Amino acid sequence: MLMLCSSWVDQMGNVHGRVEGANPNAEALLIGSHMDTVVDAGMFDGSLGIVSAISALKALKVNGKLEKLKRPVEVIAFCDEEGVRFQTTFLGSGAIAGILPATTLEISDKRDTMIKDVLKENSIDITEEKLLQLKYDPKSVWGYVEIHIEQGPVLEQKGFPLGVVKGIAGQTRLKVTVRGSQGHAGTVPMSMRQDPMAAAAELIVVMESLCKNPEEFLSYDDHCSDSSVKSLSSSLVCTVGEISTWPSASNVIPGQVTYTVDIRAIDDLGREAVIYDLSKRIYQICDKRSVSCNIEHKHDAGAVICDSELSSQLKSAAYSALKKMEGDIQDEVPTLMSGAGHDAMAMSHLTKVGMLFVRCRGGISHSPQEHVLDNDVWAAGLATLSFLENL
Amino acid sequence: MLMLCSSWVDQMGNVHGRVEGANPNAEALLIGSHMDTVVDAGMFDGSLGIVSAISALKALKVNGKLEKLKRPVEVIAFCDEEGVRFQTTFLGSGAIAGILPATTLEISDKRDTMIKDVLKENSIDITEEKLLQLKYDPKSVWGYVEIHIEQGPVLEQKGFPLGVVKGIAGQTRLKVTVRGSQGHAGTVPMSMRQDPMAAAAELIVVMESLCKNPEEFLSYDDHCSDSSVKSLSSSLVCTVGEISTWPSASNVIPGQVTYTVDIRAIDDLGREAVIYDLSKRIYQICDKRSVSCNIEHKHDAGAVICDSELSSQLKSAAYSALKKMEGDIQDEVPTLMSGAGHDAMAMSHLTKVGMLFVRCRGGISHSPQEHVLDNDVWAAGLATLSFLENL
Repeated sequence: MLMLCSSWVDQMGNVHGRVEGANPNAEALLIGSHMDTVVDAGMFDGSLGIVSAISALKALKVNGKLEKLKRPVEVIAFCDEEGVRFQTTFLGSGAIAGILPATTLEISDKRDTMIKDVLKENSIDITEEKLLQLKYDPKSVWGYVEIHIEQGPVLEQKGFPLGVVKGIAGQTRLKVTVRGSQGHAGTVPMSMRQDPMAAAAELIVVMESLCKNPEEFLSYDDHCSDSSVKSLSSSLVCTVGEISTWPSASNVIPGQVTYTVDIRAIDDLGREAVIYDLSKRIYQICDKRSVSCNIEHKHDAGAVICDSELSSQLKSAAYSALKKMEGDIQDEVPTLMSGAGHDAMAMSHLTKVGMLFVRCRGGISHSPQEHVLDNDVWAAGLATLSFLENL
Repeated sequence: MLMLCSSWVDQMGNVHGRVEGANPNAEALLIGSHMDTVVDAGMFDGSLGIVSAISALKALKVNGKLEKLKRPVEVIAFCDEEGVRFQTTFLGSGAIAGILPATTLEISDKRDTMIKDVLKENSIDITEEKLLQLKYDPKSVWGYVEIHIEQGPVLEQKGFPLGVVKGIAGQTRLKVTVRGSQGHAGTVPMSMRQDPMAAAAELIVVMESLCKNPEEFLSYDDHCSDSSVKSLSSSLVCTVGEISTWPSASNVIPGQVTYTVDIRAIDDLGREAVIYDLSKRIYQICDKRSVSCNIEHKHDAGAVICDSELSSQLKSAAYSALKKMEGDIQDEVPTLMSGAGHDAMAMSHLTKVGMLFVRCRGGISHSPQEHVLDNDVWAAGLATLSFLENL
């Protein structure tokens, strides 16, 4: 078997494969996605983008076109995009984009194991200095492209297997901690309670109302312009994905409740206005209930707008792939926004980015079933191939 | 060292110590409390009742009065009152009272380990037959007495170290499961969500309102009489102590949320009316939100009224103990209700019961600090001794 490309694992745990093509000194195209995933996200989350890129290189190799590539192509499988373990996203792409603070290596998981310890256990001896050296020289990079499942219902609604991403929503992750008075469930009268669970429930109900109808909450507030509010009404989403009580016994009024909030919107100013308003309401409700509330910002990422040139090339590639599969294509390849964060967000700090979305069955991922049609996987591979052929 | 009493561990894991006194064939007094406890409940929960009884027997021994006891006295340290691990209360006292269903041994914890497996690991080979044999013959028992910390604010407010319990509130434990559509936190518009976490938050807010003001919710309902509603207004308490989401990631709309509800009231009919009304509202809200709700009854116990003769004897014993410690006592020993469940609830199915409460510092337990004054521990021991001396 012939070697397809040179490959290596970097100090953060990202896996790289690189072909030099006809002009090894030209700026390289980076193409990839993430290897990690969340529970029940299915087998295509992240991995489809990596496999599409490798498969396309393999097809180029078979056709004898690999050596004729106009510029180097480097496939990267990023190590940790989801942030499940360390509650911090883009560990892999962030290292390559050079946006991780040096203190990142000291971040620890729920069992107090630090990132650098985990890497050490896997025979990677990283230091702050080596972390900084992982950053790519922007002059050596031409752009970053990512193929990813949509994980949403838009392409399925439109009846199209592929779509070009015009931008990625900005995102804020909060950790809200509510502290009250722990007590026995049977002995503390309702009127004497400072129950953080009842308080958290009220906070979550208010958050949902605000995010469903931001115009009702924000429109008369100076912090948010009319256009921001309008944009929020169509794009704002807010989610509580994790919640826990302490000490967590059915017959004990909890002393503390902690939950996560994930807020996303296309308009950065609008998102900031929502967080400002939500925080204000959280503190008001906690004051009223005589419980204490703490809001911790775990992650903030501005919206990213994709590069128009790359998007246009991806659109042509998608069109060409679908034409090959289905013959004549009547409609234009759709353009859509991404509500989900992707490694492209981190990579946008290094270089221009472009993304192609692949339709999910059942519309809404994450779901455990095989949620991408075989034909759509095929379309994703063909589009990647076509994009590389026309670099 | 002389032997104080005969002792053994039964097939459920309860620890017994028994002295026969002057009339080994007379009906025995059972006296005890539980050995298990919840996180942060402090060192006195349960154990104070066991230690008081053993200490009183020891004092009788020293004074040469042990052999003169009018009836046998059996101290029992019950194995599992809280129900933390198996989500079912009174495993120890329930076995002795003979109220556990034979299927109890098959109940499993969160890791699918069954009660009988746990007992086996601890060298106790229990079978259904042996479980049934643990039930005491009511004819051999005179009554059951329990000394326990109040775990509430009443005695502290009254400034009294000891109080006689007139009854124990009835209790229902529910497990509510809300199922919706799992999805990516960024890609599913608010309007298309079936979010079980937002639904659960609304359900908990409604529960709190109902339990704070039952008269507003129930007074015009046929299911509840005026006197029940009035009794509820002063005694009803509702608690959500545990909650969890699945799959529990900050960037995933949960597919399922589960939480516990603990409802207690002195009036059984009133409590049933609350559960009826709450269940109705839960299903209505779940319907409106297109999520599915399941309400599982994990535990139901009617209110228990303590025996007036035993209560009167306990009152005299408390009075005598306080007089010994403080000289003249002006006020009457207070009588109060228990909002917390106790082994006495299970034992009331076997025999008449009486309880003595001991004041907690800081009013509201469970709290981790040393929450019973040394003097009050002393009072509890003296009262137990006085009660036994006057059997």
